[in-house]
Amino acid sequence: MRHERGLLIVLSGPSGVGKGTVRKAIFENKDLDLQYSISMTTRQPREGEVHGVDYFFTTKEDFQQRIGENKFLEWAEFVGNFYGTPIEYVEKTLSEGKDIFLEIEVQGALQVKKAFPEGIFIFLAPPSMSELQNRIVTRGTETEDIILNRMNAAKEEIEMMDAYDYVVENDQVELACERIKAIMISEHLKRERVANYYKRMMEAE
Amino acid sequence: MRHERGLLIVLSGPSGVGKGTVRKAIFENKDLDLQYSISMTTRQPREGEVHGVDYFFTTKEDFQQRIGENKFLEWAEFVGNFYGTPIEYVEKTLSEGKDIFLEIEVQGALQVKKAFPEGIFIFLAPPSMSELQNRIVTRGTETEDIILNRMNAAKEEIEMMDAYDYVVENDQVELACERIKAIMISEHLKRERVANYYKRMMEAE
Repeated sequence: MRHERGLLIVLSGPSGVGKGTVRKAIFENKDLDLQYSISMTTRQPREGEVHGVDYFFTTKEDFQQRIGENKFLEWAEFVGNFYGTPIEYVEKTLSEGKDIFLEIEVQGALQVKKAFPEGIFIFLAPPSMSELQNRIVTRGTETEDIILNRMNAAKEEIEMMDAYDYVVENDQVELACERIKAIMISEHLKRERVANYYKRMMEAE
Repeated sequence: MRHERGLLIVLSGPSGVGKGTVRKAIFENKDLDLQYSISMTTRQPREGEVHGVDYFFTTKEDFQQRIGENKFLEWAEFVGNFYGTPIEYVEKTLSEGKDIFLEIEVQGALQVKKAFPEGIFIFLAPPSMSELQNRIVTRGTETEDIILNRMNAAKEEIEMMDAYDYVVENDQVELACERIKAIMISEHLKRERVANYYKRMMEAE
């Protein structure tokens, strides 16, 4: 079944969880017709980097004007350079029926969620989440302090999940990729998308 | 990641779409830890049929009392015998953390939806749905009457979808199974399920 619009898939999670590795593995899977989200940046192109492929390169003046005009899904400044996800590029790709994949840290994902709530937000969780139950069940073998620290860390991670649609554990990269693939397939099968597509088609008649 | 409760997965769709064939193929897939929903019936057991495996066998008096006590997710009468899905069995299986799969015609699915809205409702669509676009686009080659009939049939099918969460096209049995499997994996990864599971676990501490 064909669908009118592509989906914006946002992969995020705590730092060190392996977002980049999972994203690379996702793009090595040739089954998926995915477009990687291209960022805009004010930093200088490096040797071999192509405008419109690796990044959209621009000046600081232009970037700041775009910020003022709300032209980014999210943006951030790192060591004097600006990086952002241009709404126009995302909208154009989605309207061509292609899915876009954006891998981003938690603060950026929350910005995207505000600007584009219809995106699919996936929280990549550290494998230790599944050990939570064991930690809580196995009592008495650790000091009170260690247990309390672990509980607090786990609580923070659970609270970070709350803005997301799905939680995928990164216990093994291949398994995490399979789960993300299942989410993408399943999101395309949602009734509101399929039925609305056909309804609009019939109304256009 | 472990999850507290199983999911009720309901497969339905227009008659003749191939629900039974897809259900059989799903149960041949050993990756899935699925329990087939066992119906209660007033008909006589056939040779080899086992109570609690093939059906729960009971008397008409008992069945009618259970109807009065709202003990079925859905029930129907066929040629003098009653058939129904006992809520108690479904609840027990879900609370053991097992998913239940129920294949049922559209009227039954709508009854289940009322009694158990938290189920996952999958509409199996005939492959002709994807030809809808072609039909509409390819104009002038058919008489007005044929086109109108087809449009009306398609409209009815689209309206039937509206109570469902997902639409899966049954173009090929294996593809339909893969899609249903993706839906089941993805539903288990939904943030509210995963996060609530951990939250409740921490509160129990």
